[in-house]
Amino acid sequence: MNTEQLIARLAGLVGVAHVLTDERETTPFATDWRKRWFGKALAVVRPASTSEVAAVVKLCAETRTAVVPQGGNTGLCGGATPDASGRQIILNLSRLNRVRTIDTVNNTLTAEAGCVLASLQQAADDADRLFPLSLAAQGSCEIGGNLSTNAGGVQVLRYGNTRDLTLGLEVVLPSGEVWDGLRGLRKDNTGYDLKQLFIGAEGTLGVITAAVLKLFPKPRAQATAFVALASVPDALKLLTHMQSRAGDRLTAFELMSDFCLRLARKHFPRLPAPLAAAYPQYVLLELSDTQGEGVAALAEHALGEAVEAGLALDATLAASVEQARNLWQLRENMSDAQALEGPNIKHDISIPISRIAEFIAACDARLDRAFPGVRMVTFGHVGDGNLHYNAAHPEAADPAAFLGRSDEINRIVHDTVAEFGGSISAEHGLGQYKRGEILRYKSPVEMDVMRAVKRAIDPLGIMNPGKVL
Amino acid sequence: MNTEQLIARLAGLVGVAHVLTDERETTPFATDWRKRWFGKALAVVRPASTSEVAAVVKLCAETRTAVVPQGGNTGLCGGATPDASGRQIILNLSRLNRVRTIDTVNNTLTAEAGCVLASLQQAADDADRLFPLSLAAQGSCEIGGNLSTNAGGVQVLRYGNTRDLTLGLEVVLPSGEVWDGLRGLRKDNTGYDLKQLFIGAEGTLGVITAAVLKLFPKPRAQATAFVALASVPDALKLLTHMQSRAGDRLTAFELMSDFCLRLARKHFPRLPAPLAAAYPQYVLLELSDTQGEGVAALAEHALGEAVEAGLALDATLAASVEQARNLWQLRENMSDAQALEGPNIKHDISIPISRIAEFIAACDARLDRAFPGVRMVTFGHVGDGNLHYNAAHPEAADPAAFLGRSDEINRIVHDTVAEFGGSISAEHGLGQYKRGEILRYKSPVEMDVMRAVKRAIDPLGIMNPGKVL
Repeated sequence: MNTEQLIARLAGLVGVAHVLTDERETTPFATDWRKRWFGKALAVVRPASTSEVAAVVKLCAETRTAVVPQGGNTGLCGGATPDASGRQIILNLSRLNRVRTIDTVNNTLTAEAGCVLASLQQAADDADRLFPLSLAAQGSCEIGGNLSTNAGGVQVLRYGNTRDLTLGLEVVLPSGEVWDGLRGLRKDNTGYDLKQLFIGAEGTLGVITAAVLKLFPKPRAQATAFVALASVPDALKLLTHMQSRAGDRLTAFELMSDFCLRLARKHFPRLPAPLAAAYPQYVLLELSDTQGEGVAALAEHALGEAVEAGLALDATLAASVEQARNLWQLRENMSDAQALEGPNIKHDISIPISRIAEFIAACDARLDRAFPGVRMVTFGHVGDGNLHYNAAHPEAADPAAFLGRSDEINRIVHDTVAEFGGSISAEHGLGQYKRGEILRYKSPVEMDVMRAVKRAIDPLGIMNPGKVL
Repeated sequence: MNTEQLIARLAGLVGVAHVLTDERETTPFATDWRKRWFGKALAVVRPASTSEVAAVVKLCAETRTAVVPQGGNTGLCGGATPDASGRQIILNLSRLNRVRTIDTVNNTLTAEAGCVLASLQQAADDADRLFPLSLAAQGSCEIGGNLSTNAGGVQVLRYGNTRDLTLGLEVVLPSGEVWDGLRGLRKDNTGYDLKQLFIGAEGTLGVITAAVLKLFPKPRAQATAFVALASVPDALKLLTHMQSRAGDRLTAFELMSDFCLRLARKHFPRLPAPLAAAYPQYVLLELSDTQGEGVAALAEHALGEAVEAGLALDATLAASVEQARNLWQLRENMSDAQALEGPNIKHDISIPISRIAEFIAACDARLDRAFPGVRMVTFGHVGDGNLHYNAAHPEAADPAAFLGRSDEINRIVHDTVAEFGGSISAEHGLGQYKRGEILRYKSPVEMDVMRAVKRAIDPLGIMNPGKVL
């Protein structure tokens, strides 16, 4: 079958309007949103239903055509971008965007892969429930992509990653067969838990077309606090203290250095200083509760204990929703503040929580030896062990020359992460970006098992080749 | 290699004292504890370390000897019992019983497969933490078995199944290679999450030798209540109500019918009646909190609302630890009470929570049509959708004749479970018991993927053959 015949067959399956082949139309889909990877697609195919997805994948299996599944195209590792050959099709899932059911007694929502994350949050909210997955791209990322990358975000401390929020999946296998695993069960021990294979597989084992997701009771009250600390070790002690007092009410625990805070306020001067003086480290924390009363008093009491014990140097509790929002904006504007300050080399890493302080001290020192004056922008979800550990050029140095040495910096950071038992990709996946890098850190035994699984599920190798493995 | 040579090689690897071949010694290991399956082992091999396990499995791979991994031998589906051929070895993990590390900042515990569950609960408690996995066999079951069957228990509502409590694994693969996946990370998106394959695989993909498990802050206060209800639908409404009020504080929500309560009090007459009158259904619920104050008041207030709304007919809150213990004993003695009443046919099933009432009504009616007067003993973890749905013979009927018709009863129950989107094994696994039965309910597509995974990881088919698949 030649290309024209293939395209005609695809058009026959999903409608001619939904097979894009003109390069002016396909280029936005074949380029990641940060414009780091530039692919070329044979076609962008936009099916509207699971059976259309199945038909397309079946045809691709017959013709040995590589399939690159794509949702909102907001990934950070090039996992949804085709290669430059022009021989791969992009299978865009955005038209599968129905919420199939919401069950408020079972506390589940069944959604198709193309649903935008924010629309699922809204659907849950409309039903007086919480769907807790929340991350920066939520206005455009799609749940199929969140599932395929096991997305994290700001509520992992309490609710877990996307994997933890998933009860069932519907998947089009590389053969074009449909696996209906849309179960809404919290307990089911009947053989291998296949959904776990597809979650986080970045489309290399099949195409997720729908999922049964967990809902939660909506928190009715929150307390937001900004706490000053002498050091990162003290932040870890504060985490343990707050967990012992608040348990699951602790829904956020975000670390940022004074350098981070100054950076945010430099580029967003309208953001008020939360505390009267400057301190080495800060934690932004949040308590949530289904009960209206008590959570603010609990936060105040527990933070009072921390100050009294010398663990916290100062603390402020937001007295209004607006004050809470301002505190969060310091955190949420970190990425933009960094961008305004100039280019920097980012690392999405995780470390066992108990070793975070030690890791930061060791890695900072190594980087400063290799790049004297390097400015570290270190912040993140410390409650999950997830750090954004970003290196900005020394003040006097040339930003471009610094960026040119990314590989050396990555090597130091990733080697140190490995030394401390951490992960070089905490929440963004591997995609094409870290596919080579991971070979340095995973054992050959682990890579062999991954490859054996890939061969077993996708023997023709048509699913998102060149990603992950 | 003949049998004598194999046994000599095994003795060389683990020491002659740790290779049992005398049938008087091997029989207890080759028989499940409920004495439902009687196997015959070539030998019982008891390695003391991961490297000894690896050496044994490697030898078994070379000699194509089937390996039956075994922990505390408390399983309910024959998953750890060899076949009758006398050609399979039992690989008993009980000597791998060290807690390797406890990390109270990362909130993790690293334990070897042979650790008895209760000893891990104790180790966590000694470190002022909670390891929440809790089930009837905890005094003798081992964590490797809990992991291999993805054990559930009484705290799933709040803390999840064993899978949800696991951050990392160490596994001896069917080749004898060791996969070191002992990571203590809450976020790690670097390829396929291999640990998920081995959890719940009942030893058919490899031998779990150690795990990194999650710890939690210890609850400081609990409130235990016994609530009377007119019907199962009202119990589901009460669940939604209590979740909206108490959120995660709701750590147990156990349903039992009046028949169950009467059965428990008949055989354990010293247990006090919790309420003055009899009602159709009851719920035993528990709230837990890291905060000492407030949880009893919260329970009282929320239950007061339920009574006022006509949702609950009566309710009592335990006023002392002893009263709470008595309420729990009604629930915990259910299995013994049933046994004292005579044989019954048990089903470990789960149903989407929203369909439980409908399921019970439909399935009760079908069973009563087929077996008039059948007495249903229905209780369980309704908060997780997990029911113990047990059929006892009609009062006038012959128990043995009734038991002889187990297959007919299972057929009605399991078909109805499938019709309602449920699972025929909620927490016990498949083992050899339900290996055939599951073929009726899983799609050929799903079975094919499971078989492909099995072939990929265990191409020689030496790992626990005849189980699960």
